[in-house]
Amino acid sequence: MAKSDFEYVKQFEREMPALPNVWLVIRLDGRGFHKFTDDHDFAKPNDLRALRLADACAQHVMKQHPDVCISYGQSDEYSFVLRPECNLFQRRPMKLATTFAALFASSYTFYWDRYMNSIEEPTHDPDDFDHTKPVAIRSQDDTKYVPLQYPPAFDGRVVEYPDVRTLRDYLSWRQADCHINNLYNTVFWTLVQDGGLSPQAAEQDLCGTLSGDKNEILFSKFGINYNNLEPRYRKGSILIQGTREVIVPERDRSGNDTGRTKTRTKPVIQVLHTDLIREDFWREHPTILGDYQ
Amino acid sequence: MAKSDFEYVKQFEREMPALPNVWLVIRLDGRGFHKFTDDHDFAKPNDLRALRLADACAQHVMKQHPDVCISYGQSDEYSFVLRPECNLFQRRPMKLATTFAALFASSYTFYWDRYMNSIEEPTHDPDDFDHTKPVAIRSQDDTKYVPLQYPPAFDGRVVEYPDVRTLRDYLSWRQADCHINNLYNTVFWTLVQDGGLSPQAAEQDLCGTLSGDKNEILFSKFGINYNNLEPRYRKGSILIQGTREVIVPERDRSGNDTGRTKTRTKPVIQVLHTDLIREDFWREHPTILGDYQ
Amino acid sequence: MAKSDFEYVKQFEREMPALPNVWLVIRLDGRGFHKFTDDHDFAKPNDLRALRLADACAQHVMKQHPDVCISYGQSDEYSFVLRPECNLFQRRPMKLATTFAALFASSYTFYWDRYMNSIEEPTHDPDDFDHTKPVAIRSQDDTKYVPLQYPPAFDGRVVEYPDVRTLRDYLSWRQADCHINNLYNTVFWTLVQDGGLSPQAAEQDLCGTLSGDKNEILFSKFGINYNNLEPRYRKGSILIQGTREVIVPERDRSGNDTGRTKTRTKPVIQVLHTDLIREDFWREHPTILGDYQ
Amino acid sequence: MAKSDFEYVKQFEREMPALPNVWLVIRLDGRGFHKFTDDHDFAKPNDLRALRLADACAQHVMKQHPDVCISYGQSDEYSFVLRPECNLFQRRPMKLATTFAALFASSYTFYWDRYMNSIEEPTHDPDDFDHTKPVAIRSQDDTKYVPLQYPPAFDGRVVEYPDVRTLRDYLSWRQADCHINNLYNTVFWTLVQDGGLSPQAAEQDLCGTLSGDKNEILFSKFGINYNNLEPRYRKGSILIQGTREVIVPERDRSGNDTGRTKTRTKPVIQVLHTDLIREDFWREHPTILGDYQ
Repeated sequence: MAKSDFEYVKQFEREMPALPNVWLVIRLDGRGFHKFTDDHDFAKPNDLRALRLADACAQHVMKQHPDVCISYGQSDEYSFVLRPECNLFQRRPMKLATTFAALFASSYTFYWDRYMNSIEEPTHDPDDFDHTKPVAIRSQDDTKYVPLQYPPAFDGRVVEYPDVRTLRDYLSWRQADCHINNLYNTVFWTLVQDGGLSPQAAEQDLCGTLSGDKNEILFSKFGINYNNLEPRYRKGSILIQGTREVIVPERDRSGNDTGRTKTRTKPVIQVLHTDLIREDFWREHPTILGDYQ
Repeated sequence: MAKSDFEYVKQFEREMPALPNVWLVIRLDGRGFHKFTDDHDFAKPNDLRALRLADACAQHVMKQHPDVCISYGQSDEYSFVLRPECNLFQRRPMKLATTFAALFASSYTFYWDRYMNSIEEPTHDPDDFDHTKPVAIRSQDDTKYVPLQYPPAFDGRVVEYPDVRTLRDYLSWRQADCHINNLYNTVFWTLVQDGGLSPQAAEQDLCGTLSGDKNEILFSKFGINYNNLEPRYRKGSILIQGTREVIVPERDRSGNDTGRTKTRTKPVIQVLHTDLIREDFWREHPTILGDYQ
Repeated sequence: MAKSDFEYVKQFEREMPALPNVWLVIRLDGRGFHKFTDDHDFAKPNDLRALRLADACAQHVMKQHPDVCISYGQSDEYSFVLRPECNLFQRRPMKLATTFAALFASSYTFYWDRYMNSIEEPTHDPDDFDHTKPVAIRSQDDTKYVPLQYPPAFDGRVVEYPDVRTLRDYLSWRQADCHINNLYNTVFWTLVQDGGLSPQAAEQDLCGTLSGDKNEILFSKFGINYNNLEPRYRKGSILIQGTREVIVPERDRSGNDTGRTKTRTKPVIQVLHTDLIREDFWREHPTILGDYQ
Repeated sequence: MAKSDFEYVKQFEREMPALPNVWLVIRLDGRGFHKFTDDHDFAKPNDLRALRLADACAQHVMKQHPDVCISYGQSDEYSFVLRPECNLFQRRPMKLATTFAALFASSYTFYWDRYMNSIEEPTHDPDDFDHTKPVAIRSQDDTKYVPLQYPPAFDGRVVEYPDVRTLRDYLSWRQADCHINNLYNTVFWTLVQDGGLSPQAAEQDLCGTLSGDKNEILFSKFGINYNNLEPRYRKGSILIQGTREVIVPERDRSGNDTGRTKTRTKPVIQVLHTDLIREDFWREHPTILGDYQ
């Protein structure tokens, strides 16, 4: 039973590293999330708790892997961007995608109760993501308690983008997709929930309509101005590495609390719900692209 | 903001499918599990609860993906085998590895309390894996309660094996590795825990020893016959698709309970801790390889 | 101008080796050979000189690379088979395919005059391939002289086949393709050359016909029994590594010719035009597959 | 013998296209050219005829594939550059590399006599590459006649470079390599041919010397200023797509020669032997990089 007799099978392992000097995007997608959202009674068209949960998972991934310079999430998908010079896992696509998918999926399970079953109402406040802050979880007897019924799965892929133009177009593609889907879902569910239509009737009503038509239905029939809806729903979530000033207790040389406080700069993951398609976004956040813009 | 303007970026997605007609092995490895086992006070050299947890995760993966004909686990790794004719996810390696890694990692989190914090003592009973059976979980105040402190991660890879010979050698390689590591760890921790040596002294004692030497140390110094230790620790866990006869209530045509019972064959995942290197194993379980042996 | 400043660009070179332990097929295809055959007045439906030229090139490739255990050619394509244990060029697909394509293409140019412009009429004799035997070439003034007008090109690919079954089916696929094309071409050109039809009319006549119909046209209209045509045209060319007994002058210990002769076994590339789809072929030539059948 | 029974084997063909929007370099290398140059009595350190032959082959490749915007050759290697937007062969690396390798190798054979056995002395004149101009070839009885003894082979590879910086560094790498090798070879062969040293002694003399040392040996011992040697030898050959004004007979509307001439712009492949490492080169030839600089 010598080890070496069998060890030759290691030769069958093959992997091509990603090209050097290109942007890498790791995109994760929920598997079977149509059924998953039904099984867990997600609010339609958007479940704020679940979106915050996904953002929290992405934050966790970015804290573990500070090489991620920006990530973008919407619906049940999240994309993580690594810079051209990044050498995480020697740029091995399989290692990158499996590690990120696994970490995101286990985080989704780990943080489920914190975000889905918190007693406090969820807010859109992006500064609200301090995972160390204690949160009161609903009792399992609470009718509002939503137990996680089975472990969720995500698949992942790695895509190489050779320059800033194609990388930005990738992110724009995902945000445009968010807009298109959210506009559709918003009208659809408004027709069903507020308009009393059956899902089939709503689907038929929307068949062939353009963006303008959908905006018009929302406004004329339900008095809703789409552009006034929550930016989080319309724009998705953008997470970037940032800093925040925090007030901490001052300590003397012996480490004893002086009773005074001081300001310290702390790295944080910023959560934004803004338009990243326009040029301005990149000018306002120059550190994302760094020398590459 | 037309969708189509950005959609060209989809062309940058590239993936080579696996070769048709070859065995596929998806191997998952725990990331940073040396630290993870320390952070969660795993028993050394083997933590029965944690090994059962890993087996439960593998079972969950196999239930979700019945295409897996055998899986093998030891320490913090698990390998899943797909047959040459299997077309799961069109044999796309990235999709297979990310989905399995994510599902295993979220299962590890999902089942943590059930296996790590059950009030009942864990057993080696392989028939004990009914995830639907209610289990009493320790209170968080219990000193034995081990909270999961952060989401675990696993990486994954897909390896192609062209025939039964190389596939079996792969599994033999992993089981030989289990044996080698477990023998080392068993002697090491016995020297430390029962022999009163420091870890450094134990390491030095074992430096350059062969299998025979290690067996001798165990036997002569501690009266331990290595071959009598738990098969689970020495052989790892083999999971195969099987069936079990179960007794279920009989119902009449209207669906009413007749008060009698009947026997029914139910698919189950069997958990074995036996030697798969020897020829016999494959003869005793002919359905694993099917027509390929 | 230090070398090392630029040498980092070597990192961008990436290649995945072929899977170990599988059969490798390198298939070359003529590029633009429809035009090439027109430009060089190839006889239709088959040009014996050109087919012999291609066989000669394949022989040259096999002499340079004795790892090739069988090759098969028809029309403007040739396939070369490497065994599972072959480690030529460390099984790098790019290196294998480019080297074979280049060698075949330069051989095609190198041997052009010998096969296309030999004064002797070409024969089907498979033993006729001794490239060292002097051959009289036509004068460039000879009206039958066909000059090579430009360098020919071939593309290539490498395909992995995991077992004997799929490898044999690959070769059968190519030979079935040879049959189908040759039957069509034979009827088409007979209709044009002997039947006086225009190419368009011949094409229309054949539209939708089955094998049986085509055999019937040949037999009833032109008295041709397709199965009696040259095997080379119907079956293509199979090249295998073989040996031949040759009579050589005997020499004494001092190396002087004794005046007597002796028989010696010499490695040769055998050229066959037979059916490789049927089981018999492989039984009659057991060395091709060796231990793998 | 139905085609379809075997056609499933086509599924085993797999290829990943090159990444879109990156520069592609196809580099060809002579196989076994150390032996080849000995077998064909190449002049050392540089054989002008053979270098011109290689340039002619590269020109032929570029004429067949005008997508090549620049190529660079030295010794027995040649690199061809395709732009980021080029879609030749759908950017399939295998198809690109095999076609280019085959075409180069068959051109090398095809043009052999024209360049190696021309009666006229070869010149460095870059405008001298008109393959249609008749050339008088030496008789085979001429003692200077160098017959091509066997078909030459080249291997090839495709490398992706994401931006102008890395592409230029690639070309600079090859030119720096040319310089380093040529300086070494020049001193080595001068020591042997003019200094009367044995190859072993010359090799030993050069062991550990730097560029400056080699220049010094050439100058002090042999009165040779390395920088005055032929640019072709020191810089290699750069081929770019260009135009040339040619004087052609004027014709009237009926196509009859008017007896007058006119100037016309004709596409030509320019051959340069200059420094491409310095910035100036790219400014002087802005069309090579086009919009990408």
